[in-house]
Amino acid sequence: MPELRKDPIVGRWVIIATERAKRPHDYHPESDRSIESGGVCPFCPGEEHRTPKDILVYAGAGPGRDWAVRVFPNRYPALKIEGGLDREGDGVYDRMNGVGAHEVVVETPDHQKQLADLTDEEIARVLAAWRDRILDLERDRRLRYVMVFKNHRAAAGASVLHSHSQLIALPTVPKNVADEMKGSLEYYQFKERCVFCDIVAQEQRDRRRVVHENGAFLVVEPYAPKFPFETWILPKHHRSAYEDCPPADYLALAGALGVSLRKLRRALDDPPYNFILHTSPFQDRHIPYYHWHIEIMPTLSPVAGFEWGSGFYINPTPPEEAAAFLRELDV
Amino acid sequence: MPELRKDPIVGRWVIIATERAKRPHDYHPESDRSIESGGVCPFCPGEEHRTPKDILVYAGAGPGRDWAVRVFPNRYPALKIEGGLDREGDGVYDRMNGVGAHEVVVETPDHQKQLADLTDEEIARVLAAWRDRILDLERDRRLRYVMVFKNHRAAAGASVLHSHSQLIALPTVPKNVADEMKGSLEYYQFKERCVFCDIVAQEQRDRRRVVHENGAFLVVEPYAPKFPFETWILPKHHRSAYEDCPPADYLALAGALGVSLRKLRRALDDPPYNFILHTSPFQDRHIPYYHWHIEIMPTLSPVAGFEWGSGFYINPTPPEEAAAFLRELDV
Repeated sequence: MPELRKDPIVGRWVIIATERAKRPHDYHPESDRSIESGGVCPFCPGEEHRTPKDILVYAGAGPGRDWAVRVFPNRYPALKIEGGLDREGDGVYDRMNGVGAHEVVVETPDHQKQLADLTDEEIARVLAAWRDRILDLERDRRLRYVMVFKNHRAAAGASVLHSHSQLIALPTVPKNVADEMKGSLEYYQFKERCVFCDIVAQEQRDRRRVVHENGAFLVVEPYAPKFPFETWILPKHHRSAYEDCPPADYLALAGALGVSLRKLRRALDDPPYNFILHTSPFQDRHIPYYHWHIEIMPTLSPVAGFEWGSGFYINPTPPEEAAAFLRELDV
Repeated sequence: MPELRKDPIVGRWVIIATERAKRPHDYHPESDRSIESGGVCPFCPGEEHRTPKDILVYAGAGPGRDWAVRVFPNRYPALKIEGGLDREGDGVYDRMNGVGAHEVVVETPDHQKQLADLTDEEIARVLAAWRDRILDLERDRRLRYVMVFKNHRAAAGASVLHSHSQLIALPTVPKNVADEMKGSLEYYQFKERCVFCDIVAQEQRDRRRVVHENGAFLVVEPYAPKFPFETWILPKHHRSAYEDCPPADYLALAGALGVSLRKLRRALDDPPYNFILHTSPFQDRHIPYYHWHIEIMPTLSPVAGFEWGSGFYINPTPPEEAAAFLRELDV
């Protein structure tokens, strides 16, 4: 059983995923080539027997295209859905069972296509699959948060090349999310306004950090980016929870996400990247101070090794320059 | 002038280091080979003219060994020592000038030696250089914190192979340090004991996570490690600030650090690593609730790309297993 353990100083929970246990010699640098080495892609049509049973399938059309999007449990889950939390102490420390869910969303049946290559309608189906899974997982009273993310290319943590994203449902709110909630609440208590709404308004006026805009979303390089070419997709309309968006928003978001990924791919020669959906914990679905959004982080430089440990970020590319560069690219 | 910018949501400051500015095509993966490519090592004896002027030199002995440890300003500093902070707002955002210091500590004149290869006495001189620089920088009223760290190998962010560590002096306390101070204070308010002292006592009794121990220091795998083989060096005696250690402690620390680095090198085949000195902000040098220490993080897996962005860590190696493995290694 995986175990959740709490750092007694800063209160961050980590997953000790014993079933993915590695011995020292198991660690080696990975390349896109090494993750391709099996020959058979387990995420391709016709290979469905190689993965756990589907949780959700959106139907596709045409021969060898029975499905458009598939969701199934991760074969090597960081957390498991069975059992109780069994919270307990061990002297100064705290632990609980690694209860939760870890799912894979295969974004397209086409092995050759990246998320950035899909049409807006195809991307919108992926976004709807995230929503549907969040709504389902939210009914489990043991769980408090769903984290949706994508790792693109081996250097960003992907272990299968076929385009996919992941969901991890957690019995605790991750520290970075808790920090965001707390900071947003403090701003709201001081100003009686949502900090994200204020950011959207200021960026729309200022324009220097705007990369792209459509009716419902603003794509910006944030004012204080941790990483070069970090890119945020902000809904213009205030809403705490991603899963509460009206249906039309998913198509608009698909447009904004597709443009963002294509611009980054063109600017940075198909960089490895991670993106993370930032949305409210289950208990805070309708609050005035938090505003869901997506943060995309290209993985350009190994200097982050130091930076992730220290929380101290040195960014050599001003966001105004990155935005000007991205804005001009035709995609 | 570099600029410090504050994230308006979580309050993290980042450095926008414009003088290290990079265009998109400047980003490319680095290898140990690429950082060696110049042919001439600027940190070697006889090449001192290639670096900025020394701030601190400890004398060496013998021909071509005029110095044992040298400290000089980083040629591409993330922060600059001249000027005022000029704190100002820009709508929802906050910025100040990038005032601070960024220094390089060359740990040995010998190009072939890693820090792990040095004698305890040689390592102790490096540790004394950190202390001397902290004590000097502390006199600058604009500064609030000195972060001391080391990046070993290109994959961990090193741009020169010759063994060195770095200091960054900051006009603000980094968010991770502030989080540690706050968490430690909360524990102290609840228990009236230092959380680190409690950890030392529990780990000494429990032994399962202990890697090494000497009279003054305990080397452990922490209970909730963010990364596989993350290793902490904890002083047994409570003290908030590294620079206040009695002289004998630096030799004992050198022993503990040397053993730790050699064990990690042997276990993980000379892994890239970062280590970070965690010490109190200048204004908190003598407090009952915070306890300086060193955290070493081998850089084993690219999965961290996702993890640094989310603050959500999945660790496939239980610290008890890592400790048992490291404990047995003769170094």
